[in-house]
Amino acid sequence: MVDAAAAEQFLDANPQFAKQYYDVNFRPKVISDLLDNSRKTALDVSKFHDLTTVEESEVLFDLVRDIQDNLQMEKSVFNLMRHLSFMLRADRMSLFMYRQRNGVAELATRLFNVSKDAALDDCLVPPDSEIVYPLDMGIVGHVASTKKMVNVPVVSETSFYSEFVDELTEYKTKNALAVPIMNGKDVVAVMMAVNKLDGPHFTAKDEETLNKYLNFANLILRVFHLSYLHNCETRRGQVLLWSASKVFEELTDIERQFHKALYTVRAFLNCDRYSVGLLDMTKTKEFFDLWPILMGEVPPYDGPKTPDGREIIFYKLIDYILHGKEDIKVIPTPTPDHWALISGLPSYVAETGLICNIMNAAEDEFFQFQKEPLDDSGWTIKNVLSMPIVNKKEEIVGVATFYNRKDGKPFDEMDETLMESLTQFLGWSVLNTDTYDRMNKLENRKDIFQDMVMYHIKCRKDEIQNVLNTRERWGKEPDECEEEELQEILSEVLPNTKKSEILEFHFCDFDHSELDLVKCGIKMYYELKVVDKFHIPREVGAPFVFTAVCLSTGDLKRYYTDLECMAMVTAGFCHDIDHRGTNNLYQMKSGNPLAKLHGSSILERHHLDIGKTLLRDESLNIYQNLNRRQHDLVIHLMDIAIIATDLALYFKSRTMFQKIVDQSKTYENWNDWTKYMMLETTRKETAMMMTACDLSAIAKPWEIQSKNVCFKLSVSLLQPMMDRNKAADLPKLQCGFIDFVCAFVYKEFSRFHVEITPMLDRLLNNRKEWNALKEVHEAKMAEIEAAKKAKEEETAGAKQASAAQSQSKTCTLS
Amino acid sequence: MVDAAAAEQFLDANPQFAKQYYDVNFRPKVISDLLDNSRKTALDVSKFHDLTTVEESEVLFDLVRDIQDNLQMEKSVFNLMRHLSFMLRADRMSLFMYRQRNGVAELATRLFNVSKDAALDDCLVPPDSEIVYPLDMGIVGHVASTKKMVNVPVVSETSFYSEFVDELTEYKTKNALAVPIMNGKDVVAVMMAVNKLDGPHFTAKDEETLNKYLNFANLILRVFHLSYLHNCETRRGQVLLWSASKVFEELTDIERQFHKALYTVRAFLNCDRYSVGLLDMTKTKEFFDLWPILMGEVPPYDGPKTPDGREIIFYKLIDYILHGKEDIKVIPTPTPDHWALISGLPSYVAETGLICNIMNAAEDEFFQFQKEPLDDSGWTIKNVLSMPIVNKKEEIVGVATFYNRKDGKPFDEMDETLMESLTQFLGWSVLNTDTYDRMNKLENRKDIFQDMVMYHIKCRKDEIQNVLNTRERWGKEPDECEEEELQEILSEVLPNTKKSEILEFHFCDFDHSELDLVKCGIKMYYELKVVDKFHIPREVGAPFVFTAVCLSTGDLKRYYTDLECMAMVTAGFCHDIDHRGTNNLYQMKSGNPLAKLHGSSILERHHLDIGKTLLRDESLNIYQNLNRRQHDLVIHLMDIAIIATDLALYFKSRTMFQKIVDQSKTYENWNDWTKYMMLETTRKETAMMMTACDLSAIAKPWEIQSKNVCFKLSVSLLQPMMDRNKAADLPKLQCGFIDFVCAFVYKEFSRFHVEITPMLDRLLNNRKEWNALKEVHEAKMAEIEAAKKAKEEETAGAKQASAAQSQSKTCTLS
Repeated sequence: MVDAAAAEQFLDANPQFAKQYYDVNFRPKVISDLLDNSRKTALDVSKFHDLTTVEESEVLFDLVRDIQDNLQMEKSVFNLMRHLSFMLRADRMSLFMYRQRNGVAELATRLFNVSKDAALDDCLVPPDSEIVYPLDMGIVGHVASTKKMVNVPVVSETSFYSEFVDELTEYKTKNALAVPIMNGKDVVAVMMAVNKLDGPHFTAKDEETLNKYLNFANLILRVFHLSYLHNCETRRGQVLLWSASKVFEELTDIERQFHKALYTVRAFLNCDRYSVGLLDMTKTKEFFDLWPILMGEVPPYDGPKTPDGREIIFYKLIDYILHGKEDIKVIPTPTPDHWALISGLPSYVAETGLICNIMNAAEDEFFQFQKEPLDDSGWTIKNVLSMPIVNKKEEIVGVATFYNRKDGKPFDEMDETLMESLTQFLGWSVLNTDTYDRMNKLENRKDIFQDMVMYHIKCRKDEIQNVLNTRERWGKEPDECEEEELQEILSEVLPNTKKSEILEFHFCDFDHSELDLVKCGIKMYYELKVVDKFHIPREVGAPFVFTAVCLSTGDLKRYYTDLECMAMVTAGFCHDIDHRGTNNLYQMKSGNPLAKLHGSSILERHHLDIGKTLLRDESLNIYQNLNRRQHDLVIHLMDIAIIATDLALYFKSRTMFQKIVDQSKTYENWNDWTKYMMLETTRKETAMMMTACDLSAIAKPWEIQSKNVCFKLSVSLLQPMMDRNKAADLPKLQCGFIDFVCAFVYKEFSRFHVEITPMLDRLLNNRKEWNALKEVHEAKMAEIEAAKKAKEEETAGAKQASAAQSQSKTCTLS
Repeated sequence: MVDAAAAEQFLDANPQFAKQYYDVNFRPKVISDLLDNSRKTALDVSKFHDLTTVEESEVLFDLVRDIQDNLQMEKSVFNLMRHLSFMLRADRMSLFMYRQRNGVAELATRLFNVSKDAALDDCLVPPDSEIVYPLDMGIVGHVASTKKMVNVPVVSETSFYSEFVDELTEYKTKNALAVPIMNGKDVVAVMMAVNKLDGPHFTAKDEETLNKYLNFANLILRVFHLSYLHNCETRRGQVLLWSASKVFEELTDIERQFHKALYTVRAFLNCDRYSVGLLDMTKTKEFFDLWPILMGEVPPYDGPKTPDGREIIFYKLIDYILHGKEDIKVIPTPTPDHWALISGLPSYVAETGLICNIMNAAEDEFFQFQKEPLDDSGWTIKNVLSMPIVNKKEEIVGVATFYNRKDGKPFDEMDETLMESLTQFLGWSVLNTDTYDRMNKLENRKDIFQDMVMYHIKCRKDEIQNVLNTRERWGKEPDECEEEELQEILSEVLPNTKKSEILEFHFCDFDHSELDLVKCGIKMYYELKVVDKFHIPREVGAPFVFTAVCLSTGDLKRYYTDLECMAMVTAGFCHDIDHRGTNNLYQMKSGNPLAKLHGSSILERHHLDIGKTLLRDESLNIYQNLNRRQHDLVIHLMDIAIIATDLALYFKSRTMFQKIVDQSKTYENWNDWTKYMMLETTRKETAMMMTACDLSAIAKPWEIQSKNVCFKLSVSLLQPMMDRNKAADLPKLQCGFIDFVCAFVYKEFSRFHVEITPMLDRLLNNRKEWNALKEVHEAKMAEIEAAKKAKEEETAGAKQASAAQSQSKTCTLS
């Protein structure tokens, strides 16, 4: 029989056999046991003993199981450290998390004093009990700076050892081993073991052990850190996008814009409350506020100033209180003892423009934070992050201060980055609030000038009396009169239609005084039977209107409604308001604001604009009794009628007009055609446009004024191209104008309405006259040319002679 | 002796002993070997054999080593799968990555056909060879949808099996085992084993094995996925912040703004090229463009339209080509065969507003992407992501299309999110470009109205001839005349200083015609000897000016420079331009744009504004010969002098004036005081302001006009509070006005300058007169009151009598 001793002896002597036997019978179970999730770590840590590799591997598998579980950073690392302190024979171990505040790196205790027997709860450092190490202090600081493991045999002999924490915790550090935990090139944490229990210091083997397990810690912290970073970046993206969504909703003032954005993103900021102060932007006081100071009446301001020299005045605070019951408070002109201002931090930030990240506010010596609870809930200020809101002009427009990160930890560099992204965005967005202010100012300035224009353009009440002498007659103002009372005056005052010839093509506005023309204008509305109520602008473009009306009453009126007639007549009145005596090309070339405003038909759109502006005036709005649909139609027709006076458009659409005329000839009788036109909006509008266009071009008082009018026309048409010396070419230009522009219209128009034929005749007659003038001029020019040529030839002959002479001279000389 | 057989027999019989021996002698080495980084996996996969737990654990440690290395997702997962296919006896295994495109989830092969003997390079699927599974197809799709492992014994019996890939790869799938890999609740990938080699299908044990190893895959993919997400979110934040930085740089047009942002963020977009098309925003054509279509002259547009009904016209394209040599191309009015448009995708996006994420563009049937290389480098379109740029009004303003993700993979939901954040931001920022356009329009409108105002306010050339009849006299315009020629006319035309009494306090503007006043005004500039060159605005505020000048020439002038005098006189001319006959309070209450523009001293700032506007006009700028420093001073003084005419300011600063007067008395002689005042800018300015203020208030022509002026004043001061019926209270109001406003000024002013004393006397005299009127009025009121009271008593008596009567009646009845 084999007994245990013999078996052992045999096995010792035959390792090959032993291993084989083991591999078959034990190894599998050992290994699979190691990975059993429900397994407890089979490591006896009740007393220290030589660490076997068995025990070491136990530790490892503990970690693998941890990783297989849902990852909890602190718990996993705690387990690792517990094992490590056993393996390293370290009295205690700690984990310090790396972070930056105010651009300065620091390390904060996260797991403190982990020993082999420790419990997680005893070692996990709550945020308000953190010990924080600057990097230029202590062993861990040194490790984080150098990013290298350090083994310190005797701490007192090291320059970078600091007694600070030992004194705080009443502990005596003798030796230490510390190692950084990295994520790529970035330090994430530092792990440190202190006081080797079974020796004077940690050994090279300890270093090896620590290094070996670091990979696990690395992996755990990597997932933890990545999750954190991912969360921060996601929130940052949300903060920016949500702010943008609010900022671009509409233009508004700085208070409203900031508030909309700040309120929308509150859930992403992860803090208990924040307060935003808006700064007075006044750079220089008004003289009447400045003098009392200069004269010593009022003491000068001696408080802090912004970098650009403004007095620091928070004219408004908005407090966002998110802990407990959510509460937003807007405080206009807050007093300096308001909880958010009393510390002096916002003023300091406004003065320096610095980002200030403060932990343990109660103990801060530089600022005076309120130490007592701020409300009934007992909420106190713990950590504070304050930063300026700076616009694109580098001016500080406000200060945002954030209080107490939700998880109790101090604000770190990720918070700084996130909040800075927000404040940066808000600061830049001040472009929009500034624009809003500028826009309002501009709008007001425009309105003021518009008012002044109205004052000059509108006729005064006493001027109305020149036509409607209601004061003299009825002892009251026109708007106080009954319709019949006005009618009575008008029937006496308005000109006789026949006598004044307002319904004749040859109506001549030069024969009438301005006042008479106004009366004629009023009469026209009556003739067209569209009168409801009227107030007539004083500056009525005289000639066109009348002829337009003549036509309307003549023939076209049969397929225009009364409303359409009114629109056309009114358009006629407005069609040349504020004419500049220059043409569109001139506006463009001279860079007039009109050309900048209107892309095409510049002056026509301007006349339309001013006309509409006048019509918007309560006392001038002759359309005020129309309903919405009627009003839109009238305005639409005015658009067409006035813009159509642009000759450039006339060229565009004259073939269309030709077609309509052709079409009209296909109808057997007038009634059918009229009915058709009544229904066909487009055709009707086109015809209307042609009417407007034609008449604006040439249907001005004819025989009497032809020269004058034609001259005006050509000047306005050709202005920038024509200098004074070319005036003599006018007859030629006139002929061209008649041939290429006018003749067509009158020909087609005469086809459309026989009544127009006399005008065509006059036009052609006029062409003859211009042509005669042209021929006279040309003959004169030919004469001059001939004379010139003769003279030139003479001179040339002389020159030739002299050249010949000089040549011969040269010959002589050579 | 113990031999091997005996030893084995003994060990079998004594497991306790065997284990103990093993624990001491073998276990440690086995375990530590397992974790040796340089160790090769001791797994013989040359042929399949029963999987021992030993082998299983070998696999595990392979993984642990992988994790300890720097993590490479594909390599690590490949190793795991190689082992797994051995362990599961699977013919092959594959890994499918989960992603979303167009909001639809899909799975794409990443590691394909991994067998126990496979090499990574053979199994890693390059992006352009991916097989993509929709989730409603195949076993892996089913797994990703249900998020549960599935064991399919016979694929042909399963509804969700699809032959698609088998046909593609010429393989016959018989059975399969597939499992999802999760990150929290999200599917990250699906792992599938196909065709069990040593049995008809995968067993429950296989499921167990797969599940066990899944945690490792999970961890690896989790880090991988988190890194990817973090990278995407970081880029998104950068894209938003950088875009914002550009958008808020200045207001500009849409092209410039978009380009600035799109160019700045190019590095974050991770794609080869992108192209942005801007859409024409015209909603309705102008009537002259519409008619030809309505009349059938031009065929109507029959292409696609935006959701809000616009024709789809890309008026500008910007191409960002980032592969090879960076190139940005701006294409105005691109043709439809431009590479970025020819596919039809941008039009489709503009029409539907959808985000389109297309992979394998060459094979897309819906759009016609160019299949050939686009340039010499051989670059071809592979993957395309196109999305609309939508403004806050929900209009599509453009389309952005991104081509070929840098890593060759198709765009996924993170790309969609990132690009969408960018396009969303750009779309919203159209508020700013729209504002820019509106602002320019408004500015132009303001300028147009300003021009019109100038036209009405400025005197015409022919009106200038009324004063300066240069045409008649010298046959030329004033600006063509020599200084002496103008002088000659003026010496004849301008009034005699003495005779016109312009330097007298009792100068009365009511005695003069408008034209005379203009002449007086011009004369004043001469009297003050500040004339350089002049053009005088037609509307000169008459009374104040003259007395202001009188004072200047009287006494104050000794410590004012000529420049200061000129400023004051000019201020006088301008100080009431465009006066509305209403006061500041009225402007505020009536919501006049003036009140919206100016916060305080509303009308005064308006007079100043218009004054300055006039002075900016080239032909009116009397300061045009001043240097920069002089000009600033003059404008500053005008600011003070005109704003100071606001009575509200007078109350603010009168104590200061009092002090100056007191101070002046401390000087022994005038010269010292004058010298002091010459140097003390503030005092000088204050005195100037008081001068302006006083005179605007009451130093108007006195005895003759007092009633009239005082009436005007009180009306303008009290306007909104006073209705017509209170006119009778005027004398009382006047007395108050004199007591509380005027008396002080004249008293102090008389102390300052003895010359003023007569005015004070007149003021006090006037107070007497007003008081007398007041007393008369009060007596009358008292009389009326007494009569009223008497009547009331009478009525009351009657009533009482009647009440007594009715009472007695009641008594009778009861």
